[in-house]
Amino acid sequence: MHALIVLAHPETHSLNGHLKDVAIEELRRLRYTVEVSDLYAAGFDPVEAPRHFTDRVSRDRFDVQSEQRHAFDTGRTAPDVQAEIDKLSRADLLILQFPIWWFAAPAILKGWLDRVFVYGLYSSRRRYDAGLFKGKKAFVSVTAGGPETSFRHDGRNGDIDLVLWPVNFTLHYMGYSVLPQHAVFGVDAKLGPPEGLSACAEALRQKLQRVSNEEPLKFNGWSDWDESGRLKPSAPWYNHFIRVVK
Amino acid sequence: MHALIVLAHPETHSLNGHLKDVAIEELRRLRYTVEVSDLYAAGFDPVEAPRHFTDRVSRDRFDVQSEQRHAFDTGRTAPDVQAEIDKLSRADLLILQFPIWWFAAPAILKGWLDRVFVYGLYSSRRRYDAGLFKGKKAFVSVTAGGPETSFRHDGRNGDIDLVLWPVNFTLHYMGYSVLPQHAVFGVDAKLGPPEGLSACAEALRQKLQRVSNEEPLKFNGWSDWDESGRLKPSAPWYNHFIRVVK
Repeated sequence: MHALIVLAHPETHSLNGHLKDVAIEELRRLRYTVEVSDLYAAGFDPVEAPRHFTDRVSRDRFDVQSEQRHAFDTGRTAPDVQAEIDKLSRADLLILQFPIWWFAAPAILKGWLDRVFVYGLYSSRRRYDAGLFKGKKAFVSVTAGGPETSFRHDGRNGDIDLVLWPVNFTLHYMGYSVLPQHAVFGVDAKLGPPEGLSACAEALRQKLQRVSNEEPLKFNGWSDWDESGRLKPSAPWYNHFIRVVK
Repeated sequence: MHALIVLAHPETHSLNGHLKDVAIEELRRLRYTVEVSDLYAAGFDPVEAPRHFTDRVSRDRFDVQSEQRHAFDTGRTAPDVQAEIDKLSRADLLILQFPIWWFAAPAILKGWLDRVFVYGLYSSRRRYDAGLFKGKKAFVSVTAGGPETSFRHDGRNGDIDLVLWPVNFTLHYMGYSVLPQHAVFGVDAKLGPPEGLSACAEALRQKLQRVSNEEPLKFNGWSDWDESGRLKPSAPWYNHFIRVVK
């Protein structure tokens, strides 16, 4: 088995950096081979833009999907993106390790999604439960400053499942079996996690030990939708959210 | 009245670029003065990183919040960020104009949030309904490729309110009165919006005409939470979401 850890934190000696090291060690103990994409260390450019496309479909007008597709089909995907796609192709397990900034991933990781999950890897029929990475597993591993209680469904910051919906749903869109996120709450830059560093590391080790038999998040699939993309009355509602106004 | 439009699209001649122009024209007609931050045109750097901090609290370890706060308190916020903060200070109305990429804003706009909404502009008590920008209005104006039906609560892509929760909630966190988003669905890169360009422009004009008297989204505030950050049993549940598993 092979794993890819994508790390998005500006400080090597951060808790996120530490958790990446813990994950490498534990994954190797579990007989995985491991690669890491340390986006800050690599100076990854998260801005999808014309400069990444050498042979354009249109010089007049830059359309991201058209250019991504053309580059993909003609083998001209930008080298930094192609390297990430190659890593994804090799990996049975993908872990996204990041701090929650403004209820989402840091820009450098959002841009990794924007640039690496190119049109061509997915297409109108090759997505969701028919996505390219079907059979592979993925999960996000996050740190947050707010306490755990503030990220509950009735918490000040909103349900952590809600906060992480866009990134988990993106992984599902690409076909991954998305495992429940691993989260460390209440992290203080100086004091670290409230449970202490070694308990925090041990929790991640246990998460990694569960990967082989953990139940993935449930999402709806093609057979659940009608032609307009709405759930059939008979379909289960998996991982859908509705607004509560009590 | 003064408005700031933040545009995040790589192509000037895109629908997003066009809607920015429509908004400028209509806002002026409504007697606003208008500024624009065209993030792609400006080459805005969305990656929060040590390079943006000249006088560090700590040289050994980069902690974003500590460095943002120190720079803010000592007047050393990076010039590109300070320019955005100055624009925000002048603006009674903020509009974020962007295409939905991977169920979120493009990285260049996510990084604008990461870098511009610095710790110092907000603090542990100066946030939510006590946020700095209390009294100002904001809304997001988005375009999406999926049809409107796919972004309903039972749609394939999930409720548009759910998709936009992190960015709307971020605006609320900074104190803004957040108006309902303006969304154009089913946009095809070649064909444009299904309703046609002029109907699409007219819808945005009407949205802007409603700004002065439109009811903002309801969010909970300090008086609704107990000390652990959870909603008091008596509090209304505004814009909270729960997962549906039927």
